[in-house]
Amino acid sequence: MLLHLSTWVEIEAYLKRSRTVVIPIGSNEQHGPTGLLGTDWLCPEIIAHEAQKGGDLLVAPTFNIGMAQHHLGFPGTIALRPSTFMAAIGDWCKSLAAAGFEKLYFLNGHGGNVATIEAAFSELYAEASYAGVKRGFACKLKNWWDLEGVTALANRQFPSGHGSHATPSEIAVTQWAYPDQIKTANYAPQIAPTGPIREAMDFRARFPDGRMGSDPALATPEKGGELVRAAAAGLIRDVAAFAAEAPVI
Amino acid sequence: MLLHLSTWVEIEAYLKRSRTVVIPIGSNEQHGPTGLLGTDWLCPEIIAHEAQKGGDLLVAPTFNIGMAQHHLGFPGTIALRPSTFMAAIGDWCKSLAAAGFEKLYFLNGHGGNVATIEAAFSELYAEASYAGVKRGFACKLKNWWDLEGVTALANRQFPSGHGSHATPSEIAVTQWAYPDQIKTANYAPQIAPTGPIREAMDFRARFPDGRMGSDPALATPEKGGELVRAAAAGLIRDVAAFAAEAPVI
Amino acid sequence: MLLHLSTWVEIEAYLKRSRTVVIPIGSNEQHGPTGLLGTDWLCPEIIAHEAQKGGDLLVAPTFNIGMAQHHLGFPGTIALRPSTFMAAIGDWCKSLAAAGFEKLYFLNGHGGNVATIEAAFSELYAEASYAGVKRGFACKLKNWWDLEGVTALANRQFPSGHGSHATPSEIAVTQWAYPDQIKTANYAPQIAPTGPIREAMDFRARFPDGRMGSDPALATPEKGGELVRAAAAGLIRDVAAFAAEAPVI
Amino acid sequence: MLLHLSTWVEIEAYLKRSRTVVIPIGSNEQHGPTGLLGTDWLCPEIIAHEAQKGGDLLVAPTFNIGMAQHHLGFPGTIALRPSTFMAAIGDWCKSLAAAGFEKLYFLNGHGGNVATIEAAFSELYAEASYAGVKRGFACKLKNWWDLEGVTALANRQFPSGHGSHATPSEIAVTQWAYPDQIKTANYAPQIAPTGPIREAMDFRARFPDGRMGSDPALATPEKGGELVRAAAAGLIRDVAAFAAEAPVI
Amino acid sequence: MLLHLSTWVEIEAYLKRSRTVVIPIGSNEQHGPTGLLGTDWLCPEIIAHEAQKGGDLLVAPTFNIGMAQHHLGFPGTIALRPSTFMAAIGDWCKSLAAAGFEKLYFLNGHGGNVATIEAAFSELYAEASYAGVKRGFACKLKNWWDLEGVTALANRQFPSGHGSHATPSEIAVTQWAYPDQIKTANYAPQIAPTGPIREAMDFRARFPDGRMGSDPALATPEKGGELVRAAAAGLIRDVAAFAAEAPVI
Amino acid sequence: MLLHLSTWVEIEAYLKRSRTVVIPIGSNEQHGPTGLLGTDWLCPEIIAHEAQKGGDLLVAPTFNIGMAQHHLGFPGTIALRPSTFMAAIGDWCKSLAAAGFEKLYFLNGHGGNVATIEAAFSELYAEASYAGVKRGFACKLKNWWDLEGVTALANRQFPSGHGSHATPSEIAVTQWAYPDQIKTANYAPQIAPTGPIREAMDFRARFPDGRMGSDPALATPEKGGELVRAAAAGLIRDVAAFAAEAPVI
Ligand code: NI
Ligand code: NI
Ligand code: NI
Ligand code: NI
Ligand code: NI
Ligand code: NI
Repeated sequence: MLLHLSTWVEIEAYLKRSRTVVIPIGSNEQHGPTGLLGTDWLCPEIIAHEAQKGGDLLVAPTFNIGMAQHHLGFPGTIALRPSTFMAAIGDWCKSLAAAGFEKLYFLNGHGGNVATIEAAFSELYAEASYAGVKRGFACKLKNWWDLEGVTALANRQFPSGHGSHATPSEIAVTQWAYPDQIKTANYAPQIAPTGPIREAMDFRARFPDGRMGSDPALATPEKGGELVRAAAAGLIRDVAAFAAEAPVI
Repeated sequence: MLLHLSTWVEIEAYLKRSRTVVIPIGSNEQHGPTGLLGTDWLCPEIIAHEAQKGGDLLVAPTFNIGMAQHHLGFPGTIALRPSTFMAAIGDWCKSLAAAGFEKLYFLNGHGGNVATIEAAFSELYAEASYAGVKRGFACKLKNWWDLEGVTALANRQFPSGHGSHATPSEIAVTQWAYPDQIKTANYAPQIAPTGPIREAMDFRARFPDGRMGSDPALATPEKGGELVRAAAAGLIRDVAAFAAEAPVI
Repeated sequence: MLLHLSTWVEIEAYLKRSRTVVIPIGSNEQHGPTGLLGTDWLCPEIIAHEAQKGGDLLVAPTFNIGMAQHHLGFPGTIALRPSTFMAAIGDWCKSLAAAGFEKLYFLNGHGGNVATIEAAFSELYAEASYAGVKRGFACKLKNWWDLEGVTALANRQFPSGHGSHATPSEIAVTQWAYPDQIKTANYAPQIAPTGPIREAMDFRARFPDGRMGSDPALATPEKGGELVRAAAAGLIRDVAAFAAEAPVI
Repeated sequence: MLLHLSTWVEIEAYLKRSRTVVIPIGSNEQHGPTGLLGTDWLCPEIIAHEAQKGGDLLVAPTFNIGMAQHHLGFPGTIALRPSTFMAAIGDWCKSLAAAGFEKLYFLNGHGGNVATIEAAFSELYAEASYAGVKRGFACKLKNWWDLEGVTALANRQFPSGHGSHATPSEIAVTQWAYPDQIKTANYAPQIAPTGPIREAMDFRARFPDGRMGSDPALATPEKGGELVRAAAAGLIRDVAAFAAEAPVI
Repeated sequence: MLLHLSTWVEIEAYLKRSRTVVIPIGSNEQHGPTGLLGTDWLCPEIIAHEAQKGGDLLVAPTFNIGMAQHHLGFPGTIALRPSTFMAAIGDWCKSLAAAGFEKLYFLNGHGGNVATIEAAFSELYAEASYAGVKRGFACKLKNWWDLEGVTALANRQFPSGHGSHATPSEIAVTQWAYPDQIKTANYAPQIAPTGPIREAMDFRARFPDGRMGSDPALATPEKGGELVRAAAAGLIRDVAAFAAEAPVI
Repeated sequence: MLLHLSTWVEIEAYLKRSRTVVIPIGSNEQHGPTGLLGTDWLCPEIIAHEAQKGGDLLVAPTFNIGMAQHHLGFPGTIALRPSTFMAAIGDWCKSLAAAGFEKLYFLNGHGGNVATIEAAFSELYAEASYAGVKRGFACKLKNWWDLEGVTALANRQFPSGHGSHATPSEIAVTQWAYPDQIKTANYAPQIAPTGPIREAMDFRARFPDGRMGSDPALATPEKGGELVRAAAAGLIRDVAAFAAEAPVI
């Protein structure tokens, strides 16, 4: 069930049977010479939309811009400062909580988002903690590659050249969903370098074509389809466990 | 040309021939008993994606959450505080400007966004104004219904019962794009009431089913198609004029 | 009744018979070669002070600095960033609400303020909307030229050359109130150009003497007096209607 | 010379002979049963306007709302949070500096403003200090009662019952300027209590009629006139010294 | 009793007998050629730690970074912007209040902190004042040199050359506590100049070695010990009086 | 070399031979029935101070309050909101960078700090990334238990009952440094439960005595000394590698 294609009346009815919502969250940023700029928000969107076909899962609109300051040296990247990102996550959560949602599950597609999303959750909880009251809702962050079985599958698919940015697994997922948008390039070196992440100028100097440790040429739509199916199944299970968790207070 | 389905290399090439980008912007909020929650971000997305098929127009990802605090009394609404919305618009603009974009065209789908988006532009310009320097980019806001010919068409299509929220014209646009998501209801009264907009509780008391002055039953996918074609044509012309505007400094 | 020339005891008594207060709000910014820098805050102050002589109307101190970043290229302009302006409007409103005021009527003298003031109201309402509670007060913004009868009168007085900044109507109002501060200049061109509003450097390049579309030479103190009387009468009626409006929740 | 009754052309000319501007700053807050709510912004305005009649002194519009949270238990008080107040002072200073002013002299009328104004100056300087550059302007804060000779005169006029809030000296100044707004009351006790300043509820409990240590019945318009003349003379000298101060870098 | 060397169980027990806590607060900033960078946070820490040996006084961890933007021209200085400093003080206070503390006593070691700390207290109180509720705790700021008897002693110890920054009294206190960290230098001039405090570049130009009006060569560990004993005794008395103060509401 | 016991002249000299500084950072929060409230800032302080005895390492004052909102249900905890924490880290970094430091090494003692510290670094880098310039300094975060050899040693020392909060390893470190502050208690259960971290009330309900998965009774001062020596050695190596890292731009 896609929230944005539903009416408020349908959501009101859904809330009578569940208090859980899944929010795909990612980033719009360079993904090497062949990766789509939308890769990091498309992947969780693709997986969550696939998962909701198989069950009574409510999926919110995709939070498509995240913490990608280090990619700003490459055109097409759009980034929020961490402080802005936190404020926006806070407003999303408060909106959903105002409607009665109590379990907010963020399915994340961008490693660079993790720290800021966790900080945003803490900022939300802190309001209640200073006041000595209950927050009324719980937040959970899960990267799609951390869903049960996904990384193991990716390791089998890509025993070398996976890397950490513009990886063949995420590119495969978008190839499966957007087969007419598959791009090719000659990579030099075939496997990109690794190193620390700092400001955008430093990043582009270290990683001239944008990749980090990866060989995107390994991606295929078929592998992408396998990953999507594994992740969707893992998502359904993980969301169910989160939804079933009883409050302690 | 859709930015999120492009690579950074393709955007770098695009910037050699144009410095203009179109950003669909809207809101995810209740639209009466039958309007999709995503209506206000889907409409500009639908129109901009249609327009880019017919020309060399670059369309950014959709900014899908806006200033909708007054709709928070209805589940499914997700709203940003104006201050958060301004910060996020600022970061989008600075990201695009960092890449070399000089004309940032926001195609808006939500009347409640207008004041905050204008304030966000002023906040961006103000940084340069205090410093006595050039900003380096120009922002433009256009509601899709203000594109040339669109409101005239809507007036012909819906001589009465158009209203100002959950209007038959915006619902028709989404019906054309998502024909399998057409919802129906008995409206009572057929044409919804009007009144001032304040906080969410006040809003729901004044407008019990969420509509303002509208009769959504008038919408059809065919009328939506007409609106999309008119708006897409108007968008292409309006963006071209903005792109062609010469700087004065 | 002027709040700043009253005591708290007098305001406590006033609150027993009315919960409404009028706040003149404007901007201190260049108004062309002959317009006073204070024009935009002086006009609503003049009108509100005139109106309160004729009835039991409480007028707060004038909020004299607003959103005028585009005028910063001309000395004498003092501007707040939109974010600052919103914070300050918020604190004014919360202060007045803490005392028991429930209808906060802002009489505005500067077009550039409108978006930010509306955003500020939404920011205030949003706090209540996220919490699902009543805000407890209602805000209303009215430009003095939008008071009943005023623009019609100005159109009769200035059939051409009115323009949108440093207009003969606003200058006439200040001439009526400050007859010993009437300034003259040779205008070239007689009617100023028009165009978009962006950062201060861009603005000064487009509008070299600060006027937008106007011929201030048309102003006279007599026309100003007519405008003040029309606006004061319109204000009394409009405030009465706002004060009489019943809550829906 | 009053900035708000000048044109930008006149200010441009003034800047050729001086880089100094005086900003009256105060607060709108309860001043006991008989003191005007505007007392703290009216006093510096009265003094600065008087002073500019006798010399080439530029006086900005009055900053009329300040840090008065502790007075919010009494109706008519309007207060800015310290954080808002600092942001607004910052924008005023940056606006004036953008025009070329280098010496910003704040003539203050409210003791409760002092800490926040000083913090605001530090916030402005800090931007330059982190960057290792010159700020380009200097700020100075002076309470009107600290101008040379003023407190000595007040001590002679009011050897007892002066107190620290709703003092006979400040009330006398407003009586001199607004003789038709003189209010009377029976004070009990004749001299108000003293104590610490905390939140508004605590304040009203400690100081039931709003006065702190003062007997406002001692005020007369004549004493007010003496104070204004002494303060205006002191202001002219103090501003001249500030304007004459040479930069060290 | 040092809070950071206690367990939460011990603090819970302490709260049954007292609701008061002492927070040493200072700054880490240059103190001339021989003063320790930590002088301004070490002094209140030394005094508070000494005082708690003689009674049931709870001392929080030291707040060691403050408002020192003007010292940033000298390496080793670490400064918070006033806005950051206020936010952090606010969070400290809310944390302690959440645990049940009602009297928060800040023992300050840096004159430059005073304005911002006072503004921070007002910001905290303001939340309650707008809401018309009690804050629930009271804050008090005391500079260690303002404790009873301390300045009189310092005047006797240093009849000339005390000055206002890198003073012999504060340096003596650190010499007493850190006798193996006593530094020496040739001072030229022996007594440093005085002047206004602005941004860091201006400060370093006016005060080339960092001192203001002082001759640190006058400091001795013995004088420091006398000061610590006097201050510790004064602190115990002052905290007891604050703790004993009854609420008015 | 301890920065706070040095003079600015000594730091100026140090900067001629090194551009690196170590900042111990932690939290002041409950650590179970027997752990010191200061544990998380004492541990990195103890290790860094130990390490600097053996080499030319500059150690800044300890950043002693961090992101501990979840511990606010236990008295003695002092926590910064993530947004405040980020602002403060930003000001520390800018201060040190203004002096010429280029490598800022944060030695962390609190797992709950990690996300916010990383977000703070990104916020700092983002300023440069939007502007398309170099940041000028690099930040590095290292938890003391992640220093080479430390976790392996702890695993040998505490094969079971280590847990994740109020761990025997961190308590052992403080026992070694503060042997007269060793506390004992009967733990029930001997090994504390585990679970998710949310707001303070939820936390206290899940973890009634504050421990998470740990048995602090396993700690001894001797084991603490082993940990300190291992960590200090690892720190010296890790800082040297960071200092030696060449810039890529
Ligand atoms: Ni990715
Ligand atoms: Ni709509
Ligand atoms: Ni105007
Ligand atoms: Ni006063
Ligand atoms: Ni000092
Ligand atoms: Ni710990």
